Amino acid sequence: MHNLVDFPARIFYIESSSLQAARVRLTQGEVRKDMSAGKREKILKAAISVFASRGFYNAKMEDIAREAGVAVGTTYLYFENKDDLMISIFEEEMEPLINRMRENMATKTTATEKIATFIHSHLTFVERNPDMAHLLEVEMRFCSQFILGYHGGRFKEYLDLISAALVEGQISGEFKTAIHPSIFKQILFGAVDQIATNYTVSKPKRTLLSSFADEITSVILHGIAK
Amino acid sequence: MHNLVDFPARIFYIESSSLQAARVRLTQGEVRKDMSAGKREKILKAAISVFASRGFYNAKMEDIAREAGVAVGTTYLYFENKDDLMISIFEEEMEPLINRMRENMATKTTATEKIATFIHSHLTFVERNPDMAHLLEVEMRFCSQFILGYHGGRFKEYLDLISAALVEGQISGEFKTAIHPSIFKQILFGAVDQIATNYTVSKPKRTLLSSFADEITSVILHGIAK
Repeated sequence: MHNLVDFPARIFYIESSSLQAARVRLTQGEVRKDMSAGKREKILKAAISVFASRGFYNAKMEDIAREAGVAVGTTYLYFENKDDLMISIFEEEMEPLINRMRENMATKTTATEKIATFIHSHLTFVERNPDMAHLLEVEMRFCSQFILGYHGGRFKEYLDLISAALVEGQISGEFKTAIHPSIFKQILFGAVDQIATNYTVSKPKRTLLSSFADEITSVILHGIAK
Repeated sequence: MHNLVDFPARIFYIESSSLQAARVRLTQGEVRKDMSAGKREKILKAAISVFASRGFYNAKMEDIAREAGVAVGTTYLYFENKDDLMISIFEEEMEPLINRMRENMATKTTATEKIATFIHSHLTFVERNPDMAHLLEVEMRFCSQFILGYHGGRFKEYLDLISAALVEGQISGEFKTAIHPSIFKQILFGAVDQIATNYTVSKPKRTLLSSFADEITSVILHGIAK
């Protein structure tokens, strides 16, 4: 049974069964844990580089193995296939991002400032990390042939930063209570992600992306203010 | 030179050169024009059905030809490849949608009502046409290996309905003048599309999608109201 709580940015979904299979495979593997961590890291790094340079669609597991300096068979000890690799990249790259975002938001006193911080930090990350943004926003989409299975652990965590700030502001009296947190996080993320992805694929870049942050912030904050 | 004015919903982009090549091919074709229209239609219809049942990624030109009852070679007289077919489906399906949306919005007097109508009509279409929504929102994304080329004729037209309504409301004094129409159309479309796509891929469907329309409308309209 697939029950998609947070559909992830129209991007990253995978058959959860294959993800689970890959995990089982890892724990059952006979490689020693320390070696395993090292090789897994190497393969992940190589995959980032290969997906970025060749595109997810064209990349082959052989290319990734060559880049990582391991045998092709070895990559399959750690990852089921390209989709599993891409999802793993996403999950790992999101972790520090989520932590930093959480810290940035925690320095703010009001929920209003927290929402503004989310918007600004997301757009600033995209602007400063064009290669990773391309990977997460564009290449990630090609994973989706295995639709409807990715339960979106990290993605859900990321969106929940938005709904938590909304609820905080509803309790403090900053925001209207009529809007539902699970709808609001989709509205805000959808708006910010559309602007960010548009920017990522546009050439030439005429404006600084972070300069759009104020306009989004203004619309959204006026939209929910009490 | 690729200059992407409106990035299309993180979805539908194609190398414009291959689209152009396909068009040149058509006009140079030796098939009679009336026959051409009939066969082209048949192939497009078959492609909709095959993409919907098998998924864009797995579909083959052979499957589409068989479904259309034509030789595989014939499909290449009209369409360069699967991507070209998918983009053509998008462009053709969007035309009546745009016209209906334009008519719906035209029946409203205020810009405020026009924006509300856009949101409500978009979500109602997605809710009532789940197969086409799946095709346009999910399968369409697999076209994107040919990134950065689709100039988004119909998609741009669709988004411009939003910016036109914003400008109308700015002139009438309903909306703040600070927000830029080209940013606003991305914010609104991003929010609505995120909610719609989330709904399309979610199972089970717990709520009517159109019931979310009021929440989005409320946030957005309060966000831009003077």
